[in-house]
Amino acid sequence: MLTATILAIGDEIVSGITLDTNTPFLADTLLQIGVEPIGFLSVDDDPERIARALHRALEDAAVVITTGGLGPTIDDLTAAVVARVAGREMRIHEPSLQRIVERFRGRGMEMPRNNEKQALIPEGATVVENPLGTAPGFICPVAHAQGERYIVTLPGVPSEMRRMVEETVVPWLRTRSGSRRFASRTFSTYGISESKLDEMLSGLMDAEEGRLSFRAAFPRMQVRVSVSGEDPAQLQERLDRLEGAIRERLGDAVYAVGDEGLEETVIRLLSERGSTVAVAESCTGGLIGDRLTDVPGSSAAFLMGVVAYANEAKVGVLGVRPETLATDGAVSVQTAEEMAAGVRRISGADLGIATTGIAGPGGGTEEKPVGTVCIGMAWEGGGWSRRYNLGTRDRGWVKQATAQLALDLIRKWALGIPLPPS
Amino acid sequence: MLTATILAIGDEIVSGITLDTNTPFLADTLLQIGVEPIGFLSVDDDPERIARALHRALEDAAVVITTGGLGPTIDDLTAAVVARVAGREMRIHEPSLQRIVERFRGRGMEMPRNNEKQALIPEGATVVENPLGTAPGFICPVAHAQGERYIVTLPGVPSEMRRMVEETVVPWLRTRSGSRRFASRTFSTYGISESKLDEMLSGLMDAEEGRLSFRAAFPRMQVRVSVSGEDPAQLQERLDRLEGAIRERLGDAVYAVGDEGLEETVIRLLSERGSTVAVAESCTGGLIGDRLTDVPGSSAAFLMGVVAYANEAKVGVLGVRPETLATDGAVSVQTAEEMAAGVRRISGADLGIATTGIAGPGGGTEEKPVGTVCIGMAWEGGGWSRRYNLGTRDRGWVKQATAQLALDLIRKWALGIPLPPS
Repeated sequence: MLTATILAIGDEIVSGITLDTNTPFLADTLLQIGVEPIGFLSVDDDPERIARALHRALEDAAVVITTGGLGPTIDDLTAAVVARVAGREMRIHEPSLQRIVERFRGRGMEMPRNNEKQALIPEGATVVENPLGTAPGFICPVAHAQGERYIVTLPGVPSEMRRMVEETVVPWLRTRSGSRRFASRTFSTYGISESKLDEMLSGLMDAEEGRLSFRAAFPRMQVRVSVSGEDPAQLQERLDRLEGAIRERLGDAVYAVGDEGLEETVIRLLSERGSTVAVAESCTGGLIGDRLTDVPGSSAAFLMGVVAYANEAKVGVLGVRPETLATDGAVSVQTAEEMAAGVRRISGADLGIATTGIAGPGGGTEEKPVGTVCIGMAWEGGGWSRRYNLGTRDRGWVKQATAQLALDLIRKWALGIPLPPS
Repeated sequence: MLTATILAIGDEIVSGITLDTNTPFLADTLLQIGVEPIGFLSVDDDPERIARALHRALEDAAVVITTGGLGPTIDDLTAAVVARVAGREMRIHEPSLQRIVERFRGRGMEMPRNNEKQALIPEGATVVENPLGTAPGFICPVAHAQGERYIVTLPGVPSEMRRMVEETVVPWLRTRSGSRRFASRTFSTYGISESKLDEMLSGLMDAEEGRLSFRAAFPRMQVRVSVSGEDPAQLQERLDRLEGAIRERLGDAVYAVGDEGLEETVIRLLSERGSTVAVAESCTGGLIGDRLTDVPGSSAAFLMGVVAYANEAKVGVLGVRPETLATDGAVSVQTAEEMAAGVRRISGADLGIATTGIAGPGGGTEEKPVGTVCIGMAWEGGGWSRRYNLGTRDRGWVKQATAQLALDLIRKWALGIPLPPS
């Protein structure tokens, strides 16, 4: 397997000011095409430290990918240091210089003198075009005791770097990694823990057939299957077969194939069916509305939200009966049902859904500890509610877990999947 | 200056599955106490790669801090590899073993055999207690050609690692970094760009007096001053003097000293004054309510939110006049004013504030392009509104920038700072 080391360059990374998201993106991309990331390095803009890191990285891996340090200022030294480590001269790459000059001209500006240096690349390196910015990247061969190795040098701006990886670096890596092809499929799931998923999918395939991995980035939980082989069409067939097996085992818990978030699934399903939803939020405080409205075009399906934090808002706006609050309390299935019915009535939506709970850290009691959450739903001629105990992590966690639960209930309702027992 | 290299260990990091937030936290903490982070490394759980990374890190820096690989499973090899690199035997640390046994007993369980290994630490190392988990850390001296060096070994669970750093590692580092003391103060600001802040604060102090740095993590923008010297009391005096100078230059743009978020400032100010707020959100979709309710105790000041996404909700619930929508449009200062007055009326809050705008990517026109946002406010006997053009990045950006703007307007209102011209 082709191996790679990733080197992130820049003072702002090593001082902890900027969180480096380029490296995890690159690692994930490499794994998907069958290149093994074996280590990450970060160094500041010091040329000696960059050179040392490059030498070490070349000892370990066949390909070294660098991000950062391609800007126009004197701090931006990556290209020059790479050339030195590779034992090559720097040369102006005329087409890149022309692109930079035209980029400035397009904005009615003269190219500042400093930017000329961004067109300097090591002799013999292949340019990686940057469609979104001024600095091109390059792939520089390095003669090494362990055979020919490569340094792939990319800018640090995430959007530029990602585009260049997808358009140029991935195809190039595929040519280096031999005839073996890699393919993967991701499934987004709700309601099953990582260890339970592992159990439910055990024995799905043997190690030769493919690889199963889990990605838990709360509130998201994803399963990915990766396969490799010579024939791309066959790989897709294998993924289709595996998808069938996964769906059989996980059932309704799979809400999307790919990276779709639960809020996107919900808006897509409701829009397809021409259904609308309105949300009454107490403990989630607006988070459900916020997530739904993150989806472009959500206005087709999401009519309104009421953040009824105070009891007066529950009564005055949503029409919750004061007796319900007095008898059952604000955190109760009865209140959740009345909130859902209320927001449905005032919005005219097909579905009303409501959350009320104790997000903490204060407000818990023995009977209703922090993490107690009630969800209510109301639709034409029907309703549903249930009390949950989500546990007592922190406030943000309880809010997010409740929002995820509510979104999944909207999904189930839209699909006609039976709701959990009340 | 004492130098440090940070080494993150684990398959889940190198495969891109887990975003390593421990390393930036450590880098930031080190800088605040005058230790210079000079490089980061990440390797998978392979013992040879861990050993190689440790050897290289010890060449570069006086202190190497590792995170991860201290769990009970066979993959968790960090402690054993550190002992090998340091040339020391592993020994059971009895007090740690007792703590682990008791931890399990407290939950009515026998300690699994595997966990015993978590009490093994290199001979001669100092234990770093872990109040939140089973695995203790340790500080292991290493005889090195360049003098005595240290490997500080910590678990990878962020909450455990942070607590151990704050309680044990930072005090230990202070004793190593000599008599020089470091102190810093952070100012959270709103409404001034990084380059403008840099300009406004230029010449504030010379390099000997201290260091100025900027931390831009949208929507937050912070300024930090760091000073060093022998006498802690004098350092605080210098910080006080610098704070005065910064406040003089930045004025109302400083909303908090320290890491307080704008939503926390708003809830604190409103609670102190016994004032209440209600929010009518269109383009922000619930984000303002979500941020306000992230603050524990926010129910004292935040009464309710209405996410009036559809025009029907603006009219039916908030009482916006249909003529206003017809004449001025949903995105207009008139609509924003009526939304603010409406949410104030139905909630009984002291202040009503409303957002309406075009978050994109669709919906823009020549007259009202994506990024056009109107904010309205209403209070007893008064009101205010203004139209902004926030630019056209992505939908999430426009929502977050609008929420930040609205929160800052609530802050100004609570403090009696004049609002911007309408």
